[in-house]
Amino acid sequence: METAVPSGQLEVNSARLIEELGALAEFTSVEQPEQGRAVTRVVFSDDDLRARTWLKGRAREAGLTTREDAVGNTFFQWPGTEPELPPVATGSHIDAIPHAGMYDGTVGVLGGLEAIRSLKESGFVPRRSIELVLLTSEEPTRFGIGCLGSRLIAGMLDPECADALRGRERGKESETLAEVRSRAGFDGPLSAVHLKAGHYHAWVELHIEQGPLLEREQIPIGIVTAIAAPASYRFEINGVGGHAGALLMPDRRDALCAAAEIILSIEKHVLATKAIDTVGTAGTCDVYPGAVNSVPSRVTLQVDVRDIDPGRRENVMREVRLDVQELALRRGVKVEETLVNADEPALCSEHVVGVIHSVCHDAAISAKHMVSRAYHDSLFMARIAPIAMIFIPCRGGVSHRPDEYASPESIADGTRVLAGTLARLAME
Amino acid sequence: METAVPSGQLEVNSARLIEELGALAEFTSVEQPEQGRAVTRVVFSDDDLRARTWLKGRAREAGLTTREDAVGNTFFQWPGTEPELPPVATGSHIDAIPHAGMYDGTVGVLGGLEAIRSLKESGFVPRRSIELVLLTSEEPTRFGIGCLGSRLIAGMLDPECADALRGRERGKESETLAEVRSRAGFDGPLSAVHLKAGHYHAWVELHIEQGPLLEREQIPIGIVTAIAAPASYRFEINGVGGHAGALLMPDRRDALCAAAEIILSIEKHVLATKAIDTVGTAGTCDVYPGAVNSVPSRVTLQVDVRDIDPGRRENVMREVRLDVQELALRRGVKVEETLVNADEPALCSEHVVGVIHSVCHDAAISAKHMVSRAYHDSLFMARIAPIAMIFIPCRGGVSHRPDEYASPESIADGTRVLAGTLARLAME
Repeated sequence: METAVPSGQLEVNSARLIEELGALAEFTSVEQPEQGRAVTRVVFSDDDLRARTWLKGRAREAGLTTREDAVGNTFFQWPGTEPELPPVATGSHIDAIPHAGMYDGTVGVLGGLEAIRSLKESGFVPRRSIELVLLTSEEPTRFGIGCLGSRLIAGMLDPECADALRGRERGKESETLAEVRSRAGFDGPLSAVHLKAGHYHAWVELHIEQGPLLEREQIPIGIVTAIAAPASYRFEINGVGGHAGALLMPDRRDALCAAAEIILSIEKHVLATKAIDTVGTAGTCDVYPGAVNSVPSRVTLQVDVRDIDPGRRENVMREVRLDVQELALRRGVKVEETLVNADEPALCSEHVVGVIHSVCHDAAISAKHMVSRAYHDSLFMARIAPIAMIFIPCRGGVSHRPDEYASPESIADGTRVLAGTLARLAME
Repeated sequence: METAVPSGQLEVNSARLIEELGALAEFTSVEQPEQGRAVTRVVFSDDDLRARTWLKGRAREAGLTTREDAVGNTFFQWPGTEPELPPVATGSHIDAIPHAGMYDGTVGVLGGLEAIRSLKESGFVPRRSIELVLLTSEEPTRFGIGCLGSRLIAGMLDPECADALRGRERGKESETLAEVRSRAGFDGPLSAVHLKAGHYHAWVELHIEQGPLLEREQIPIGIVTAIAAPASYRFEINGVGGHAGALLMPDRRDALCAAAEIILSIEKHVLATKAIDTVGTAGTCDVYPGAVNSVPSRVTLQVDVRDIDPGRRENVMREVRLDVQELALRRGVKVEETLVNADEPALCSEHVVGVIHSVCHDAAISAKHMVSRAYHDSLFMARIAPIAMIFIPCRGGVSHRPDEYASPESIADGTRVLAGTLARLAME
């Protein structure tokens, strides 16, 4: 049976999708909403597990099959007429950092679900199976490394090392991933999570831009051609503590003063690149013992530096290290730097980018090619499949904040383009 | 009946005192001792309450009467032959900041108990009653203000404001003092804690120096003539948060970078005084939202600046404020400074200093006059009584750390001088 490939004009049920985004946002452990609806949904928290159960219910209603792997990646499939062919896949994440918003990741998951439902309801019958994938822990909040699920799928993270990762709880080390995932009901060896290259025909992820460009230029769709390479580091600064009144200034080896210099050194050398694609952030600063009348003896900083050019990123860190050496000597403190992770940038598939482009063209939706400065699970899915991403505008370029916002129109545009893209790829 | 005033040669039971210091150190909520015996005993924690019960038992065995006030200050009395006269008092605190040592405060409490017991056992009969006072929350750990008990005794803290103070728990606000003290069993109005000037004939506090001078000069006793004036401030820096990958550097208003500049500004202007008595410390740095991939939107710093010269202390803060104004404007962040407390320095009583001096002289114990850079409950007791302090050396000048140490010989020397001083004052 020959089935028509729907064009970009395919109608999506925007009201249903927006209602579902609102429902998903209710699964949050934030107590005090501020500036819009704050969402905190840390991987394998009660809220995350309840959200997963809710999502599985929605996928069941849509007639999709469900498979979960050992790290909680969840695969919802719409079987094609030739199910032996590599499927076409889309997906994203539903975990959220503390006090975040309700669109980051979720638009890709629920938009993907809506795209599949709309295609089904239009009478379309795919040749290749189409899969929606919920990926575990894109955010590094709990285990210090982002994209846990997609790294394991791509074989980019040693399963034993992954199982030994310890969750961070307010500066204290706590349970391992092995313990946490087992309690959440995800058992079996992590090595089975890996999917070999060629498993998927193509991977497409829909996401809010998390930058200001689409909104500023009033363009509804961004087609991502490359994803910037993030690296994260931990600096542990050990000085000497003491009583804040009695320890004289010349005798001090204050770990927080040293940390302050490191924070400013990172900012300085990132700015010195004068490259718009280079960003650097010290996001946490844990002080020990942490009392107003005690000189800090130990400080831990978590630092994130990213760029689409990994060489430039490494230059920044080289300059920071020179500063750290100098200040450690001058201040008599010991600074230990740990590379938490450093990933290579990913190039998107010209073919998948071309398909998205043609869907936009046929539907008369304007689009621009762009790079992603934020990283995404797609960075790792690129290891096993041709990928691309579809971006939609978000207000003020804001994300990871309660006032993160994408309009229903933008979300519908993105979902329509995603549906058209999945349909064309599924008929190849 | 005429009773002899014991000289400084009075024997104290050093072994009993050292054993009791060890027993008191067992009341701690620290889980991982390091560098010696770490002690954490936050006011009204279970450990603090158990330590109080234990101490009351020891005082009962020594034949002292016990009175507790509404904030938990505890008065152990040895009645004199003329109990209508204002008593002579000594005392200190037993609360300890997180991961502190076992001598700060406790030497004054248990040394005071031992001084009284030794005097009793020597057959001495005092004319004035002698009181040992356990003062509540000298450390600001829980409620942000140090010397809660002695401030209320001195009438230096409004009882309603005190009851409304909220405990700090890892950056979160929690219960009020009113709630916490009531649950600990200390009821009644805080206004009743105040004692009027003249209530005590004199106040003497024994304490470790918390500085390096006595050890460096090998002098067993310091006689404190003035106590430095501490001030503490809270800086709340509000910037704009966002995704660490997507928020471009020129658009950032990073609260942690601003905080880093403030930390270094404080250090710079304190060092610029070139005065050994000026110290400044940023002891806590709470980052919100506190995730590696999130630009900090809000940071709270707690800052402690102290000096024996309040004018010089104020000059430092004036310079810091100029820097803060400039950097807030440049970085587009909002900085709010709150004065948590600023106290006047205290001068000790020439008369009490003279009595301590004569006790040391008669016992052939060398002593030096000095200022206290750390603050103590005596700063507030000075508002209602003539005061002085007796310092003993501590190793390396270290305090507020697990390796804080005073030798049994030093502790015995201090206790002997305290006993002689209490005895002479009690016969006046």
